[in-house]
Amino acid sequence: MKAARLFGYHEPLKIVEVDYPRITKPDHVVVRVKGAGVCHTDLHVVEGMWQVSFPRTLGHENAGIVEEVGDAVEGFKRGDPVIIHPAMTDGVCRACRAGEDMYCENLEFVGMGRDGGFAEYMLTSARSLVKAEGLDLAEIAPMADAGLTVMRAVKKASIGLYPGSFVAVVGIGGLGHIAVQLLKLMSSAYIVAIDVVEGKLRLAEQLGADYVVNAREDPVRQIFEITGRRGVNVAMDLVGVQSTHDTCIRILRKGGKVVVVGYGGVINVKSQDMIANELTVEGSLVGNYLELADLVELARQGKVKLVTKRFPLERVNEALNMLKTGELVGRAVLTP
Amino acid sequence: MKAARLFGYHEPLKIVEVDYPRITKPDHVVVRVKGAGVCHTDLHVVEGMWQVSFPRTLGHENAGIVEEVGDAVEGFKRGDPVIIHPAMTDGVCRACRAGEDMYCENLEFVGMGRDGGFAEYMLTSARSLVKAEGLDLAEIAPMADAGLTVMRAVKKASIGLYPGSFVAVVGIGGLGHIAVQLLKLMSSAYIVAIDVVEGKLRLAEQLGADYVVNAREDPVRQIFEITGRRGVNVAMDLVGVQSTHDTCIRILRKGGKVVVVGYGGVINVKSQDMIANELTVEGSLVGNYLELADLVELARQGKVKLVTKRFPLERVNEALNMLKTGELVGRAVLTP
Amino acid sequence: MKAARLFGYHEPLKIVEVDYPRITKPDHVVVRVKGAGVCHTDLHVVEGMWQVSFPRTLGHENAGIVEEVGDAVEGFKRGDPVIIHPAMTDGVCRACRAGEDMYCENLEFVGMGRDGGFAEYMLTSARSLVKAEGLDLAEIAPMADAGLTVMRAVKKASIGLYPGSFVAVVGIGGLGHIAVQLLKLMSSAYIVAIDVVEGKLRLAEQLGADYVVNAREDPVRQIFEITGRRGVNVAMDLVGVQSTHDTCIRILRKGGKVVVVGYGGVINVKSQDMIANELTVEGSLVGNYLELADLVELARQGKVKLVTKRFPLERVNEALNMLKTGELVGRAVLTP
Amino acid sequence: MKAARLFGYHEPLKIVEVDYPRITKPDHVVVRVKGAGVCHTDLHVVEGMWQVSFPRTLGHENAGIVEEVGDAVEGFKRGDPVIIHPAMTDGVCRACRAGEDMYCENLEFVGMGRDGGFAEYMLTSARSLVKAEGLDLAEIAPMADAGLTVMRAVKKASIGLYPGSFVAVVGIGGLGHIAVQLLKLMSSAYIVAIDVVEGKLRLAEQLGADYVVNAREDPVRQIFEITGRRGVNVAMDLVGVQSTHDTCIRILRKGGKVVVVGYGGVINVKSQDMIANELTVEGSLVGNYLELADLVELARQGKVKLVTKRFPLERVNEALNMLKTGELVGRAVLTP
Repeated sequence: MKAARLFGYHEPLKIVEVDYPRITKPDHVVVRVKGAGVCHTDLHVVEGMWQVSFPRTLGHENAGIVEEVGDAVEGFKRGDPVIIHPAMTDGVCRACRAGEDMYCENLEFVGMGRDGGFAEYMLTSARSLVKAEGLDLAEIAPMADAGLTVMRAVKKASIGLYPGSFVAVVGIGGLGHIAVQLLKLMSSAYIVAIDVVEGKLRLAEQLGADYVVNAREDPVRQIFEITGRRGVNVAMDLVGVQSTHDTCIRILRKGGKVVVVGYGGVINVKSQDMIANELTVEGSLVGNYLELADLVELARQGKVKLVTKRFPLERVNEALNMLKTGELVGRAVLTP
Repeated sequence: MKAARLFGYHEPLKIVEVDYPRITKPDHVVVRVKGAGVCHTDLHVVEGMWQVSFPRTLGHENAGIVEEVGDAVEGFKRGDPVIIHPAMTDGVCRACRAGEDMYCENLEFVGMGRDGGFAEYMLTSARSLVKAEGLDLAEIAPMADAGLTVMRAVKKASIGLYPGSFVAVVGIGGLGHIAVQLLKLMSSAYIVAIDVVEGKLRLAEQLGADYVVNAREDPVRQIFEITGRRGVNVAMDLVGVQSTHDTCIRILRKGGKVVVVGYGGVINVKSQDMIANELTVEGSLVGNYLELADLVELARQGKVKLVTKRFPLERVNEALNMLKTGELVGRAVLTP
Repeated sequence: MKAARLFGYHEPLKIVEVDYPRITKPDHVVVRVKGAGVCHTDLHVVEGMWQVSFPRTLGHENAGIVEEVGDAVEGFKRGDPVIIHPAMTDGVCRACRAGEDMYCENLEFVGMGRDGGFAEYMLTSARSLVKAEGLDLAEIAPMADAGLTVMRAVKKASIGLYPGSFVAVVGIGGLGHIAVQLLKLMSSAYIVAIDVVEGKLRLAEQLGADYVVNAREDPVRQIFEITGRRGVNVAMDLVGVQSTHDTCIRILRKGGKVVVVGYGGVINVKSQDMIANELTVEGSLVGNYLELADLVELARQGKVKLVTKRFPLERVNEALNMLKTGELVGRAVLTP
Repeated sequence: MKAARLFGYHEPLKIVEVDYPRITKPDHVVVRVKGAGVCHTDLHVVEGMWQVSFPRTLGHENAGIVEEVGDAVEGFKRGDPVIIHPAMTDGVCRACRAGEDMYCENLEFVGMGRDGGFAEYMLTSARSLVKAEGLDLAEIAPMADAGLTVMRAVKKASIGLYPGSFVAVVGIGGLGHIAVQLLKLMSSAYIVAIDVVEGKLRLAEQLGADYVVNAREDPVRQIFEITGRRGVNVAMDLVGVQSTHDTCIRILRKGGKVVVVGYGGVINVKSQDMIANELTVEGSLVGNYLELADLVELARQGKVKLVTKRFPLERVNEALNMLKTGELVGRAVLTP
């Protein structure tokens, strides 16, 4: 079968022939990939921000059709449409018991620690599957990471939001356009969308943002004007460059919180300021299985929609480049 | 009456004669001060980290006897022993309604925004009083800020602690020796006490710390040994210099949290690390009225004890100096 | 001024001349009543289910224009449009500090413990006022109790609801038609509306209910069919007769909860069943100040709408009768 | 091997020879039973309150030594000392993902739905095992149900308790003597122990109860005296007969809660009372895996101690009879 693999940092992926995945544990499952989202984290892997062994098939946001199941698998069978949580977990450690899959003591993350979905088939385990009947598999594939990451981050943001409070969404790209929708759904806070691209701010407005701020024009001042000089209750940093990290801290009101999702810079804040205003800075990491299941249900109810652009597997490097240069509207999805 | 007042940054306080406080609102109360704790924040005011107008009577952790009450005061009368929450609040803004006194839109903080307790008498309002029958007023005075600050920070720390988890207490001084007691009371986590002074580590052991770490000898390595190479679930930074800020970040396990109480340095953490380990950094600011009421009840039950050293009002500068040089064991209290 | 007063249980109200209310405390406020909702609790007072002294001006869901304020009132002045929380509270007891106004140790409830809003003017205190600029005061008056009661009950219901779970709303009257809207807004659960009147079920559908059940036709069986034989996660009993109490218990799934809002019968459940299915039965009592403030903000955003029918003060007994016989669609509001 | 089995309702158990358990799934585990607690639920099974098929080996609170493990079991091996959660669960349903083992869609409860621990060996699955190194297995066996049930119920009770609030523990038997210890550990509320046996009230005092009430002498009146005429914040009904159900409701203060653990009677409360005082009645069902793990850690720390009386397997009927007549102090444990 074909796969798009990384053979070294800073190199383009190569389309190569690899073996069809082998089931070695009774709960293993092979899925025929119908959609594999292309993520900034794939770029970060290529750039060497994350350590992987080579060659590695990238791709951690995947959906497809069950092809084959291990002996102990119940509840899934060949032909079932599924979306795949990117973490393979043991199910018995404290973290798994508490529902926090991403903290699993034996976590394996597809597309990084093991081969992912930029391929015709991929291996996972039954614990990672969410049923996806009636959904367009290529379209919902990005729910498995982009959507899931936003789901968890918005849940963190929502704590402390109340009707009439303010939340800033910094970056209206693949994550941000989902964030606006989920915030609209899960709070009655006023949403302030922030970006440097006017077209993305227009998209935010269509999706329900109450205010838009072009970050090229002194965003801090604009936000204090919008919020009656108080600042926002919560800022979601979906970009993660130094300027967005710094802006997010500066636009908070007393008791405010930054939820950090995008990464790249350094969080930098005087502890005196953290205490005087009782600020919180909180990282958010992908999301757990139930958060994915809930998100898929929201998609099924038609409450969250993804903007996607499809590419055949062979054009994976083109998709990665467009993501890098910011040309993409919405999310790129490979359709192996 | 006599008061110890600050006339300029970096100057010693002066003992001067000032007018007895005047009740100007129906809920005002005058308290005869029996104990006024001396706090690092008093030092920070002298150093100019906080802006005040001059002259200013310092002192924000106070207890005493009600001397006089305004017309609308119910529930308190002349002669009642009280401990005084340091914030004067309006009681009707959203923050007050939610019980978060420190976020009050019309907050006045005694000893900073208005005159405090380094004086024979001080003005406050009925909303700020907690009854203190049967308690030694000089001894419990530090509960009003040192104790209260720890109470809130330990509550924040406790979220996510479970039997057998690990919490680090960085700094076993006026705050830290209370933190060990409250953590012992409010969790079954293992407590790791960290300081550079052996005597303080001994005190931590007596109060119930399960492990002690002398921070002069590679604390990060020691803590990873103690925690089976996982790091702590929560670190409480009660010191707030650059090295403690940095250590706290480095000793966290996945999903870990730093509660920042001491201040002075800069919180500095790569956003990639914040996300990869889903870390949280959370400032903690004094505490609310109910947290103080609960703490006073714990003191009444004999579950929290303060180590204090008493000074007459005239020796206020001596007390401040001992605090600055680290000579104090426990908390200095003025007894005007 | 005119007021509609009760002179004895089981008697009609009488329109009589009474004194204009006198401000006796510095935080008192007199409001010119523009809307006063008519509630089942008014009926229950007439029926003697609640003890009052006579004569008593009924009416606990009120909105109007500030007419006069006491000396200590800040933030409100003559001419301000306001909605009035029905509880007058002390603001300093533990309950008030925790934001739970209805548990205030010195609570006075207008229209029951003291005179209410079935009058041209009524007395309250500044703590009870929520600003209502830009809103139709007669239309939002029922928010002060009907809406608020539902707001709190829906918040209780929402704990444990998740996308795709099921919630039953029993009774689509003055409370129920708000409940459907708030559940739609605050959850992504499937809403099952239950009533005996087809017209009310049609209204529920228009407001967003996913399923409707006519309770004349074996509601328990219907609900188990709708929920795939599992039962609902939460049932809201907004009626409170014996049959609705019993139905609510019987339609719960494991871990299910009944939120009891309507009252009149007896909650009756074998403890073995409560444990085997780990059920919860939870009373809900009006709501607190912030819940009302949040609801008014939702009304301002156009997210919750009341169906009301207006009556002049003189026709109060007619409105009460229509409520009793079930003829009313939505909520009756007096416009004194 | 020998097992104590039930062959029909209302019959004594018989000691019979049965086959050694057979591992049929890769995650199965056979445990050599070292302690099997005797529970009121065993009595209730004999009495026919729960449906079982015959013959059935009873016993759901078990500890022992791992004898044999299935092919897929990791983390446990022959010789490991373990305590056994009574539920066998699938690990992949929504309930399991959320950590709520008792709601598992494929739950099997040992000693009821399948054979339990009144035998030399028993079958369970790896998911149900908690490591128990260094603990006396016969002594901690009752943690698996009696202790666990109290752990969860006390966690439910603790929500809303604060320093100086009041909690009633009704019944100081096998559950109650653990409840007093856990409440002491997990709250600073005043504990009111209620029983009809003076010796049990003395035990409660030794374990830390602040007040004791002999229920033969108007417990409601006594409790209102103890609580300053306010009633308790929370009542834990660990007995579950009609009189304890009724008493628990009557001793609550506004906003109060009954946690129902013992069962047998009917919960009976006017809905008007539930609403006027905003009461909650909440069933509590055993507990989840992490609650058991946490409890075992507390036992390891020496913070919870069980009073037990040991019986050889052959004397199981004697143990059941003593439990029935109330003669037992603490918990009976079989040592097969």
